[in-house]
Amino acid sequence: MNRLLVTREECDASGRVRITGRRCDHIREILKSEPGDKLRAGYVNGPAASAEVISVGNDFCELEMHEDADAELPQPPDMDILLAMPRPKFFKRILPQLATIGVRHIYLCAADRSERCYFDTHLLEPENYMPLLIEGLEQAMDTRLPDIRIIRPLRNYLRDELAPQYETGHRLLAHPGPVSAPGTVPRGGGPVLVAIGAEGGWSDRELEWFDSFGFTRFSAGLRILRTDMACIAIPAVIDYLRS
Amino acid sequence: MNRLLVTREECDASGRVRITGRRCDHIREILKSEPGDKLRAGYVNGPAASAEVISVGNDFCELEMHEDADAELPQPPDMDILLAMPRPKFFKRILPQLATIGVRHIYLCAADRSERCYFDTHLLEPENYMPLLIEGLEQAMDTRLPDIRIIRPLRNYLRDELAPQYETGHRLLAHPGPVSAPGTVPRGGGPVLVAIGAEGGWSDRELEWFDSFGFTRFSAGLRILRTDMACIAIPAVIDYLRS
Repeated sequence: MNRLLVTREECDASGRVRITGRRCDHIREILKSEPGDKLRAGYVNGPAASAEVISVGNDFCELEMHEDADAELPQPPDMDILLAMPRPKFFKRILPQLATIGVRHIYLCAADRSERCYFDTHLLEPENYMPLLIEGLEQAMDTRLPDIRIIRPLRNYLRDELAPQYETGHRLLAHPGPVSAPGTVPRGGGPVLVAIGAEGGWSDRELEWFDSFGFTRFSAGLRILRTDMACIAIPAVIDYLRS
Repeated sequence: MNRLLVTREECDASGRVRITGRRCDHIREILKSEPGDKLRAGYVNGPAASAEVISVGNDFCELEMHEDADAELPQPPDMDILLAMPRPKFFKRILPQLATIGVRHIYLCAADRSERCYFDTHLLEPENYMPLLIEGLEQAMDTRLPDIRIIRPLRNYLRDELAPQYETGHRLLAHPGPVSAPGTVPRGGGPVLVAIGAEGGWSDRELEWFDSFGFTRFSAGLRILRTDMACIAIPAVIDYLRS
């Protein structure tokens, strides 16, 4: 946790906040903070702040937040991810990872090789996924929550909503194959959308949709990565090539 | 599991093997294999094979292995990782990841910001780390186990053993900072060594050692990744740049 994040709703009118759970444990056990200490902090989807430790109890910490307009936040992310809904076990791992890497939108779709029952997970409720995203943001010192959206049906949404939003060359489909040349990913420019498949990859008809809506296939290497690893490796390489 | 791996010791003289646990569960529950089915397989640190399912019980599977000299294995990895010993919780996650990515040697060192007690973990016993590495290899369809070695003390081992083994430019130190130019990582050539620090990074004196032994600093981006994510993102970018 490199920047402690709180929501505006957690704070009282004077800017005080009482935290429990993971964030409190971190302050007590890892940082071993004492009253008077100041921590790097921020408001979820808001500015950076400093948090003064007011008191530390057995299972809570009281903090006083002070907005810090001078503190620099990371560049706003301009990468969006379209993900075939993964197995909940991996989804839980992927969410904080994507928040750490820096992603603006996470689009989740049903796919031919992704089980429909994956959408039954409680992790799709904001009260369950928000803490995971916040944990990932705290690592990267960012405050901007990725926005999660379920899209369906994939083909129509791709054609009507997603493809028109991204310039040619900025719609990428992560797909195993011979390693793509660096020029496959344009430097700078507007936001990119990166589609990442489920275990077993996209089906033939899905690949055809992506092709026909102007997605460029991108491969970072020949070894087959599990979805949760691909969700780190692919954005890392694409981020690097764009910077 | 894209290639089931067994050790030679597990097989009897006729090439039959009885497996239980994770691999058996995968065959029963994910692949739903039946007697007569053939699975992509291999011997740990040996050739590829095909495994014929002989019988499937409630908690075991019996297989008959047949070496498959024609099956292609991935290129042998030529990346080595030097890792400040991470917290056991992350180490457990990192081991299969590195095996999937494709790493030849994993050197573990004590570091100023890594706790000595991390070395007390049972995960440093081969009978505990081997299954994790094998799981990672099975994902990448490789059979070659990374070799794990504890090095100490860091400074002397770096100077006397590691630095002389790698060409100039092939000793890299992952370190946050402005993004490195692609030319920082040489294409092709001999093996590279990539040093990745613990939470909190390397200390000043450790950075001086790396500098004086000819390590080139490499940064793939400005966001701060947790060690387990860095162990995917950094090798992925370096692999990409070398290919």
